[in-house]
Amino acid sequence: MESLWLEDLNVGDRFRTEEYEITREEILAFAGQYDPQPFHLDETAATDTFFQGLAASGWHTAAITMRLIVTSGLPFATGIIGAGVELTWPTPTRPGDIVHAEITVTEIKVSRSQPDRGFITVAYDTLTRSGQVRQRTTATLLMFTRTSPTGPAEVPQR
Amino acid sequence: MESLWLEDLNVGDRFRTEEYEITREEILAFAGQYDPQPFHLDETAATDTFFQGLAASGWHTAAITMRLIVTSGLPFATGIIGAGVELTWPTPTRPGDIVHAEITVTEIKVSRSQPDRGFITVAYDTLTRSGQVRQRTTATLLMFTRTSPTGPAEVPQR
Repeated sequence: MESLWLEDLNVGDRFRTEEYEITREEILAFAGQYDPQPFHLDETAATDTFFQGLAASGWHTAAITMRLIVTSGLPFATGIIGAGVELTWPTPTRPGDIVHAEITVTEIKVSRSQPDRGFITVAYDTLTRSGQVRQRTTATLLMFTRTSPTGPAEVPQR
Repeated sequence: MESLWLEDLNVGDRFRTEEYEITREEILAFAGQYDPQPFHLDETAATDTFFQGLAASGWHTAAITMRLIVTSGLPFATGIIGAGVELTWPTPTRPGDIVHAEITVTEIKVSRSQPDRGFITVAYDTLTRSGQVRQRTTATLLMFTRTSPTGPAEVPQR
């Protein structure tokens, strides 16, 4: 894919990532390191919890979604630089889920003080093949124009 | 720590986690798997980017923060079950950072339809020893009362 800069984007632009299969082994490994709770670590222990079975950490779903966006979602020339994010996990991510993300550009704001950069807002859902929403995200990303100096950059005031 | 239930919490309650040292090796490993961008993977490549040096993926900071909260932050009887979250990354997380989280309960809402459960809102900062804020988070968590049935549970309407 061709690399995109701030001036290449329009509100309403849509992107779709490839797919990622989430294995039981990866769920256990991530949870063991970053979210060691019974419902993320052990099928039997998970049965009697709110999740009614093994579920991935929400942060694991978020990390996988980021991988999809970086590797096959948004071909931005200067990378995916998140300033802030809002997310919900409407349904638990399960072993064997095959997910992808669908992304829409919802807002573009060029900085007044530094017109070589700006913030875009993207909304994206992490979906299973049957359309269940595992994560719903709104993210504010920092982007640059082609004419931006290549040197160190300051975050503009919004 | 004693396990806490919904009725044990009050707005204004504060918690503080232990510390976690983030190594260069862990930054590279996480980024390789979930956020493979130059500024998270290679010092030299990172120098000429917005980050001006190697920085951890924001999702890595989020995952480490979750580990701290689960293992030493919030001793909730039924675990840390996130419904939704808002977060910003005011400064990049760097190799060698030693971080902890400081948590405040800011809102408690018992469900009207299912009074054995409710949502609490917690605000927490992920801080370095010198007080730099690496992540600022507001999370909505699902909690239960001592009298909640132990069986499978439905998410209440907010």
